[in-house]
Amino acid sequence: MTVSIRGYAAQSASTPLAPHSFERREPRADDVAIDILYCGVCHSDIHQARNEWGNSVFPVVPGHEIVGRVTAVGAQVSGFKPGDLVGVGCLVDSCQHCDACAQGLEQYCKEGPTFTYNSTDRHDGMRTYGGYSERIVVSQKFVLRIPDGVDPKAAAPLLCAGITTWSPLRHWKVGKGQKVAVVGLGGLGHMGLKFAKAMGADVTLFTRSPGKEQEARRLGADHVVLSTDPQQMAAVAGNFDFILDTVPHQHDLNPYLATLKLDGVHVLVGLVEPIDPPTHAGNLIFGRRSIAGSLIGGIPETQEMLDFCAEHQINADVEMINIQDINEAYARMLKSDVRYRFVIDVASLAKAA
Amino acid sequence: MTVSIRGYAAQSASTPLAPHSFERREPRADDVAIDILYCGVCHSDIHQARNEWGNSVFPVVPGHEIVGRVTAVGAQVSGFKPGDLVGVGCLVDSCQHCDACAQGLEQYCKEGPTFTYNSTDRHDGMRTYGGYSERIVVSQKFVLRIPDGVDPKAAAPLLCAGITTWSPLRHWKVGKGQKVAVVGLGGLGHMGLKFAKAMGADVTLFTRSPGKEQEARRLGADHVVLSTDPQQMAAVAGNFDFILDTVPHQHDLNPYLATLKLDGVHVLVGLVEPIDPPTHAGNLIFGRRSIAGSLIGGIPETQEMLDFCAEHQINADVEMINIQDINEAYARMLKSDVRYRFVIDVASLAKAA
Repeated sequence: MTVSIRGYAAQSASTPLAPHSFERREPRADDVAIDILYCGVCHSDIHQARNEWGNSVFPVVPGHEIVGRVTAVGAQVSGFKPGDLVGVGCLVDSCQHCDACAQGLEQYCKEGPTFTYNSTDRHDGMRTYGGYSERIVVSQKFVLRIPDGVDPKAAAPLLCAGITTWSPLRHWKVGKGQKVAVVGLGGLGHMGLKFAKAMGADVTLFTRSPGKEQEARRLGADHVVLSTDPQQMAAVAGNFDFILDTVPHQHDLNPYLATLKLDGVHVLVGLVEPIDPPTHAGNLIFGRRSIAGSLIGGIPETQEMLDFCAEHQINADVEMINIQDINEAYARMLKSDVRYRFVIDVASLAKAA
Repeated sequence: MTVSIRGYAAQSASTPLAPHSFERREPRADDVAIDILYCGVCHSDIHQARNEWGNSVFPVVPGHEIVGRVTAVGAQVSGFKPGDLVGVGCLVDSCQHCDACAQGLEQYCKEGPTFTYNSTDRHDGMRTYGGYSERIVVSQKFVLRIPDGVDPKAAAPLLCAGITTWSPLRHWKVGKGQKVAVVGLGGLGHMGLKFAKAMGADVTLFTRSPGKEQEARRLGADHVVLSTDPQQMAAVAGNFDFILDTVPHQHDLNPYLATLKLDGVHVLVGLVEPIDPPTHAGNLIFGRRSIAGSLIGGIPETQEMLDFCAEHQINADVEMINIQDINEAYARMLKSDVRYRFVIDVASLAKAA
């Protein structure tokens, strides 16, 4: 049994997003059915709508920063009930028996997790479709509680931009007494500043654009370093314990590596391409430095982050849009013209009926 | 006051090593004077004799895998006395007050350590000259005890090849229950196999050359994987906790990264060039993997390694040469024709008088 759902989809790599109806399953015994209220707009939505990673199966209904209200639950569901405010991020399933899943790191599932869209359900073989739509059905293990005190609109980007920065900051134990730098001030970077500050670190923003000082400080930065200025870069040589690099395109890591302390770590969360220009091995060897990568985050740590956000009054900074404006939003994102995340008010979908 | 010393030096980047006399200081109050018995021949000796790192000041007297006997000590020296069997590695001094020095990681000294050769003494401004010579004078803090039960000839390579592999294996806590791979079977690689095995890990050798199976097993490998065979590589996908990469020239890390588990680390100890072909960031992100670098080791951990070698009866496999054969030895090393480290019997120097 399936149900027809309205949403917005890309029908091919070269067509703009447009209204589209598709089928979702009826809730299984462990499923939660959710009416979607808000959906954040992530850079990877653009990549997949345009098949820039080469793995898109069209139509693609993007959206993996989903906040909504439970409307129904399957017979085996115990943790959620109709009316609950919940979230769904990038993942909707995983094998549940590999080492990674056992650690609550479903994003690294050995068999590959099931992604919220542009993926195939591992039980019924149906394609998955994302949050640019009125309703979604998700296994309860992959549904997050949105705590009281969190603005649901602004919580949507926490489900991807938030957890993608939270997970490495936690894994590498960022905290008091540490100097942390964030590279890039976009959807991910602005969350990185807020989290690193709330964790107690001394926080620096690396940016290529002058004039972001005031904005960066408002978001949690203690210092701003213009990475295009060799003098400013030299002044922070050997300075940082940890660099969170949110830049989603190729860039030279070498100048940043030189700003790491002994045993410092440079973590990539935005780049899914070859590291070019190449990293000089000397920048690693002289200082026992590391370059690492980190992928979104697991379900338990996503809940931990949401609870932390409620406790520390942290939210994403968002610009609300109607779903009819999604193509214009993509164009603005490609010019970095958004502070700092677009969020679709999914109620606007009714207008497209 | 200085003393004239006989040794072998490169007078320029393009001349073979030849007999050469030079001046060393008389022992200072904290110095140990050492008659050199044996000196290992390291790949970096060739690099610096030929100015391949661009920082050589000629003449260069190479050699930083030194074993000898104490002949005299300064007034403040308490840890050594004439007759002691001692070692000197890559470092002969450091600032002694930075964070790295305070941790016993003098190789990462913030002000830069003083290297055993091709460096400048930080007190008197004299050039440093290495172990291809009859005698050396070194501050007691940088002199190692060679424990009883260690063959002094075979101990020489422990001072660089040994500690360079020991330090990262220890730092990343390699031990029982872990799967460790060593890339490259040369002076460093053969020590990596021995140490990883003695630490209790399940050890694999990655090699590009067939026919090393028996030899690798003798040195401690439990498995050998031909890295040029895609099927063998696919069979170890996601298999290793730790890769110790001893290859001293540019190579593609991507096939190795794919063999790391979640949170696996690939450590470079031989490469001091750009990592080219570039590393694909996806190989880091999908698995939270790291690429790190590690430089030789500090003095306390070098002593720890020597004591471990005595306890576990571990030594380098060496080919003894006379110093007159050094240029031929370099030529053979460049063809990887050595099992696994040349060691100069410095007594042969008398023949050059």
